[in-house]
Amino acid sequence: MNIPQSVIWEHGSIRLLDQRKLPHVTHYLTLQTVPAVFDAIKSLAVRGAPAIGIAAAFGVALSALNHPSDDIDEVKEQVLIDSGYLSQSRPTAVNLFWALNRMNEVVIAAPTADSLRENVLAEALAIQKEDEDVCRAIGEHALPLFNDGDHVMTICNAGSIATAKYGTALAPFFLSKERGINLSVFACETRPVFQGARLTTWELMQAGVDVTLITDSMAAHTMKTKNISAVITGADRVAANGDSANKIGTFGLAVLAKSFGIPFYIAAPLSTFDLDTPNGDAIPIEERDPTEITEVNGMRVAPEGVAVFNPAFDVAPADLITGIITEKGVIAPNERDIAALFS
Amino acid sequence: MNIPQSVIWEHGSIRLLDQRKLPHVTHYLTLQTVPAVFDAIKSLAVRGAPAIGIAAAFGVALSALNHPSDDIDEVKEQVLIDSGYLSQSRPTAVNLFWALNRMNEVVIAAPTADSLRENVLAEALAIQKEDEDVCRAIGEHALPLFNDGDHVMTICNAGSIATAKYGTALAPFFLSKERGINLSVFACETRPVFQGARLTTWELMQAGVDVTLITDSMAAHTMKTKNISAVITGADRVAANGDSANKIGTFGLAVLAKSFGIPFYIAAPLSTFDLDTPNGDAIPIEERDPTEITEVNGMRVAPEGVAVFNPAFDVAPADLITGIITEKGVIAPNERDIAALFS
Repeated sequence: MNIPQSVIWEHGSIRLLDQRKLPHVTHYLTLQTVPAVFDAIKSLAVRGAPAIGIAAAFGVALSALNHPSDDIDEVKEQVLIDSGYLSQSRPTAVNLFWALNRMNEVVIAAPTADSLRENVLAEALAIQKEDEDVCRAIGEHALPLFNDGDHVMTICNAGSIATAKYGTALAPFFLSKERGINLSVFACETRPVFQGARLTTWELMQAGVDVTLITDSMAAHTMKTKNISAVITGADRVAANGDSANKIGTFGLAVLAKSFGIPFYIAAPLSTFDLDTPNGDAIPIEERDPTEITEVNGMRVAPEGVAVFNPAFDVAPADLITGIITEKGVIAPNERDIAALFS
Repeated sequence: MNIPQSVIWEHGSIRLLDQRKLPHVTHYLTLQTVPAVFDAIKSLAVRGAPAIGIAAAFGVALSALNHPSDDIDEVKEQVLIDSGYLSQSRPTAVNLFWALNRMNEVVIAAPTADSLRENVLAEALAIQKEDEDVCRAIGEHALPLFNDGDHVMTICNAGSIATAKYGTALAPFFLSKERGINLSVFACETRPVFQGARLTTWELMQAGVDVTLITDSMAAHTMKTKNISAVITGADRVAANGDSANKIGTFGLAVLAKSFGIPFYIAAPLSTFDLDTPNGDAIPIEERDPTEITEVNGMRVAPEGVAVFNPAFDVAPADLITGIITEKGVIAPNERDIAALFS
């Protein structure tokens, strides 16, 4: 089975899936320098918080390999400069800083130039492996929630190519396919950026998972007529009380699922939980450029000068969430169970 | 105030707004022959059931004017042939047949060729005027449902350019503007065909009505954060029990409105009611071409070969509808009140 991955370390280079070209062309870039990694992150060739962190970590590994000096102080300085440079590629990506900080610690602790080069590569591979393990564990915990033949709805792309492998919300579909369990996915196209249409359909089709594309506006009618048995989405941030921010449209699906008596699941690794955010009202909602809505493929679909409201995320409140699927198991979306995850 | 109209009779010709070019260009075609009217209807230059009927009626008037013979039998035959030809331009449009049948009766009843030419033009103008009156009456009955400063959500284009003038769901916004009452409209873009983005924003902006464009996926978040006080949509068919079929996405808005405690209104002329359809389950839901979803402006946004579900309509069940606004007043969506409308 072909489960696409967006970042692959191979022969001392990064092979990076160019997600900007999907679903039309499956093209892997070969990145051999830090500036190439910087450009790939900045230009959105790679997207998905974990995948960005992994790409940046391998960028630090490239930096070390590209500084062959035996002078440990010189190599440290150069690699830390490159790491700082990479941190500017996508200043709002929390996972980017997290991965680079982890790499910096390994750089600083290295006793020799050779061990530095060895250790940073090992650390980057470890970051990738850990994310793959987390995603696979989420998939394992999600699987018992579904039965053979189920129809499941999702939005956006909480998928394999946004992570090391498997994804979060999409992980159970890859694992079920491996085991001969047939799940059918209904993918909402996810306006305005079409991640569902462009990415989720593509990666599920690569793996032979049955997937049907709908517009976001078809969710209610599809739930009613297509025997949808569950909704599962990723999350950008889970607050201490279980309120979960995710791609715009998620909140609406949660309301619809409740109204149809369909379970609504959030798939989210522990790294997504923010216990310092008490609830959804404390999550800032980014508003993005109006042209995301008024233009498609560079062509206008709305009048010049029209007023636009373009929130990138919304918040599914805890009381609409049936369960949150983490790498440690499925928990109820409440303060006690979330706190227990971290104790 | 500029309330755009899609069909205008002027100097013996039809001026027809080319809706295919909106919102980029405001272009009126001048139609002087029956084949030109046929092409305009077939190629979707005119859309909206009432507007199509009106265009066809004026097409019959053109036919009569273009047959200057004094032989009443010859003129009748020619005009009825043209009318039959026009009925083939959009074989699924019920309003088209209704308008042409009405015109045919006038043709058949005419005693002389001159009176035929006079009467068919009068009848076409009457069909147009009646639709304008119906729309204006719907707007009048809707107005008391809103207060100055209200934010109201709509989907698709149940607007002035789909009718003779004013539209159905959009009528109250034009009337409120005339009277200095400020209503703000949140227009859902209406995937897959973008009628909200392309048409509703455009025609409200023409009249100076405050309008903000959102994607369909933003409806829930917008209801929560933008103080939406009501939802109003048109209807393609209202069943005897009040279940109402309308553009895909309407059902979802009705569920969301209920969940937020926001009134949900259907604006529909009596001609939209079908007492022979007992309820929503008896309304066939047309499925349209997958490329409507997989392509935008001729460019793909989804993988080749992806499975697609593309229902054109959905059904808002009567129990989610606060009231149906007709030209005779606002009624409750139930069998008794609907039957009373027609008794």
